[in-house]
Amino acid sequence: MTNIQGIAASQGIAIAKAYQLTTPDLSFEKKKTDNPQHEAERLDNALNISKQELEKIKAHTLKELGEEHAEIFSAHLLVLSDPELINPIKDKITSEKVIAETALEETANMFIDMFKNMDNEYMRERAADIQDVTKRVMSHLLGASFPDPALIDEEVVVIANDLTPSDTAQLNRQFVKGFATDIGGRTSHSAIMARSLEIPAVVGTKEATETINSDDMIIIDGNEGKVLVNPSESELAEYRRKQEEFEQQKEEWAKLKDEPTFSQDGEQVELAANIGTPDDVGGVLNNGGEGIGLYRTEFLYMGKSELPTEEEQFEAYKSVLEQMGDKPVVVRTLDIGGDKELDYMDLPKELNPFLGFRAIRFCLENEDVFRPQLRALLRASVHGTLKIMFPMIATLEEFRQAKAILLDEKEKLASEGIKTSDNIEVGIMVEIPSTAVIAKQFAKEVDFFSIGTNDLIQYTMAADRMNEQVSYLYQPYHPAILNLVNNVIEAAHSEGKWAGMCGEMAGDSIAIPILLGLGLDEFSMSATSILQARSQISGLSKEKMASYKDKLLSMGTAEEVVEFVKEKTN
Amino acid sequence: MTNIQGIAASQGIAIAKAYQLTTPDLSFEKKKTDNPQHEAERLDNALNISKQELEKIKAHTLKELGEEHAEIFSAHLLVLSDPELINPIKDKITSEKVIAETALEETANMFIDMFKNMDNEYMRERAADIQDVTKRVMSHLLGASFPDPALIDEEVVVIANDLTPSDTAQLNRQFVKGFATDIGGRTSHSAIMARSLEIPAVVGTKEATETINSDDMIIIDGNEGKVLVNPSESELAEYRRKQEEFEQQKEEWAKLKDEPTFSQDGEQVELAANIGTPDDVGGVLNNGGEGIGLYRTEFLYMGKSELPTEEEQFEAYKSVLEQMGDKPVVVRTLDIGGDKELDYMDLPKELNPFLGFRAIRFCLENEDVFRPQLRALLRASVHGTLKIMFPMIATLEEFRQAKAILLDEKEKLASEGIKTSDNIEVGIMVEIPSTAVIAKQFAKEVDFFSIGTNDLIQYTMAADRMNEQVSYLYQPYHPAILNLVNNVIEAAHSEGKWAGMCGEMAGDSIAIPILLGLGLDEFSMSATSILQARSQISGLSKEKMASYKDKLLSMGTAEEVVEFVKEKTN
Repeated sequence: MTNIQGIAASQGIAIAKAYQLTTPDLSFEKKKTDNPQHEAERLDNALNISKQELEKIKAHTLKELGEEHAEIFSAHLLVLSDPELINPIKDKITSEKVIAETALEETANMFIDMFKNMDNEYMRERAADIQDVTKRVMSHLLGASFPDPALIDEEVVVIANDLTPSDTAQLNRQFVKGFATDIGGRTSHSAIMARSLEIPAVVGTKEATETINSDDMIIIDGNEGKVLVNPSESELAEYRRKQEEFEQQKEEWAKLKDEPTFSQDGEQVELAANIGTPDDVGGVLNNGGEGIGLYRTEFLYMGKSELPTEEEQFEAYKSVLEQMGDKPVVVRTLDIGGDKELDYMDLPKELNPFLGFRAIRFCLENEDVFRPQLRALLRASVHGTLKIMFPMIATLEEFRQAKAILLDEKEKLASEGIKTSDNIEVGIMVEIPSTAVIAKQFAKEVDFFSIGTNDLIQYTMAADRMNEQVSYLYQPYHPAILNLVNNVIEAAHSEGKWAGMCGEMAGDSIAIPILLGLGLDEFSMSATSILQARSQISGLSKEKMASYKDKLLSMGTAEEVVEFVKEKTN
Repeated sequence: MTNIQGIAASQGIAIAKAYQLTTPDLSFEKKKTDNPQHEAERLDNALNISKQELEKIKAHTLKELGEEHAEIFSAHLLVLSDPELINPIKDKITSEKVIAETALEETANMFIDMFKNMDNEYMRERAADIQDVTKRVMSHLLGASFPDPALIDEEVVVIANDLTPSDTAQLNRQFVKGFATDIGGRTSHSAIMARSLEIPAVVGTKEATETINSDDMIIIDGNEGKVLVNPSESELAEYRRKQEEFEQQKEEWAKLKDEPTFSQDGEQVELAANIGTPDDVGGVLNNGGEGIGLYRTEFLYMGKSELPTEEEQFEAYKSVLEQMGDKPVVVRTLDIGGDKELDYMDLPKELNPFLGFRAIRFCLENEDVFRPQLRALLRASVHGTLKIMFPMIATLEEFRQAKAILLDEKEKLASEGIKTSDNIEVGIMVEIPSTAVIAKQFAKEVDFFSIGTNDLIQYTMAADRMNEQVSYLYQPYHPAILNLVNNVIEAAHSEGKWAGMCGEMAGDSIAIPILLGLGLDEFSMSATSILQARSQISGLSKEKMASYKDKLLSMGTAEEVVEFVKEKTN
């Protein structure tokens, strides 16, 4: 029996056999053939099996995760049917009398190299598609089975070095009970996916694939970040009990689905969800979300070969607004740049992209990109309760300029006879320290604040949260962060405005009591955290938490804050 | 007559003929020769002229700028005498019967390519040295003259795309009256050098080299950032008058050299200087510096092939302390990483180096680097008034940890019988927003604060000051910056500590009245700004400026702040 410690990425307990998700050995000996006809048939056969598999995976993904996630497999299927790739492979077999493996590898590599070296992210992604597909076809030529998490048909926990987006997209929730990875952190892609799929997960174990063998019995403790390998009978019994308790707790939480959110002493707050696409709205409603606190519109722009049209955007915004009915939807305008690239926009390479030309900075300089989004939002505004939020605002001038462009588009639409709502609140993300510091000045002009803690923390601490060497400085409970958050909330209230939060911190069980005491009005989090947060808040006295405010704000370190909160809420 | 607008980089007015500092055309036709003996002689001849030139430049630089700046030319001279480079060139002439140009180019390129591709910054710098020297030798082979600003022997203003460190090191102050460059900003290397050489300069003109021809008559207005090309008689007269006024003003300022610094209403502040090497101390004393507010110790570590020894460091610190007598010297411990690399330390490549593993973060993880510096400082402490300052402090824990290491070394020295001062103040740079926000908590534990505005501004605004696309967000007068600065000063005073500032802002004529009003105790700036600042402060009422504090802190934009200050101080 071995215990591995990692980072708790998605809560819950999973108990099942290990399924090692590793790429098979695809090496082979390059040989000539006397029978090219036979090699061409072998190739066709491998192509056909691959197609069938991909169709299956695509259908599965579409059903489980929606169109956006299924798209990658459409791209893979296109590659498999592309005569510009397949014909040269067959020609090579015939003309050079080589085995199918050689012809496949050499032809594919030629295309991959060609696309890879193009100065265009879109073509580089095509190179990645060809690489993925080639591996699959090669594995069938070699008689090796290509691991397809989508095809798992018994209960397992998946063990992998890391899970790519296409891996996680394929996880079948019916059979995949949890996963553990060697690398990653709480905000890595696989962690976020695990929470959205509600699968227990532990990431960043450093050693899971090395220590664990296929068919080992595994317990994943997504609450404590532990992985138990071949546990004893007593451990199994203990964790089965924990699992049951957790399930019961979830059932309790589920009862709060259609309830409003009140603290123990009867103060109401709003629990909203962060989403990326219209497909996410179902999960928000199922989890009792009272609104959308952050609709990240980047996904409309990413992974494409050109800008989305105004019409495409309108349809997406309208869909979200209609699905949410009269519940509020805060849409963040395009937050591109920094670590988020647009393949077709040719953004400059920067030495410090997190301190660079991104979000509103980019939009104010590229009105041809910004205005169509604002038009689409304005047109969609009649279909629900829309609030518009500008990201990365560092100065009042930026807010004024962005709002002026919005009003200009509103007027244009009016003159075109297109109706727009007259009650759209216009607010800002507070994620840059300057804006948190002079929130009082901003509060006179904006309709609301939403504190984006992920960025606010990294700028306030001057530490890139993606950089492992300084990630210890990513401290949500640092007293400086609490002081800035408090400053924003006080500023909002002094002008009769509301303040929300849409970073990871808003759904964190240590942060929630603090934020309640500071008077935060809206907490926006992963949809799957909402019910638990509602349950937690129902047990907290806002007045009592508020009475600790001065003490918390004058503390010296994050550690003191955490200890104090744990003591006072236990 | 043409006017070019650029960025005012170093004040004063220069009027002289243009000297275009451009590299000559070094192209040639590769040919065989019948007379290798003659080619070898041509090579020797070109090598000799180059050596003579370099000796002259080196001597000149040593005299004008000190040993550190002259080192680059020692390196160049070494290259010229290196048989490992010269012999292969001669062999090539003889064996391949090619002209000297071909042999020089091909051999040099081979070495340059080899060194360039080494994974070692030191060797890459050797590649740059060979490249520089090869150009010089080539120009003599081709009969072209290689521009040597050091050899200028008539009054000129230098016009260049940019000035490299080796270019600026060579500028002869007797003849070079000013310069204008196409690129660069107020904090670029050439701008800083111009201020330290007290030569009027305008940078970032975008078009100086294109618009200006050699021998054009030029006026450089380093106060307004203007370059006038072939001015009219009346303009010449006007600027001669301005030049005279400025000279008179400088004479007035010079009278303040040995005076303390008092505001009009009799409040005293300290004007200190920022330095990089012991060589800079002379300039500080000549300019009436009352102390060193920031001794950047990085220069001891940079441009070398290994760490400086404790002894080397001790000598440098002792030299600065002794030269300064009983005036205070604030030494900042190693601030490496970010944009400052150590060639021999193999620091990790980071996606956002400004938010990365640098300064105190690096030192706390590399005690083998940190402890020798602290020992050298402690040993030097008996030679003057030493204050030690830790950079990039984001949490109280970091300060406590750094201070504990310092005390540990002090104890060790005591047990070795080595005397150290018992009155060393230990403080921190405030350059990370978190520390500015909870300055009150820090003030209980540190002996002083020095606000590093260059970094504080870029983190607070989340804008890389080196990134031209977002440099408009580098706003020293942004009300958020003023609020943070005020918070730091108030925190210091509430605990009876002092607060200084060592960023560019401390010497800025718009910022000085504000900072005086906020109660800043020490202003540390370029030595050449001190007298002017002393003069400005003597005309300002601290009480009056303090009465504007609340108004300034509640303003919305940097623009409002600047307008208000200009109005109130005119």
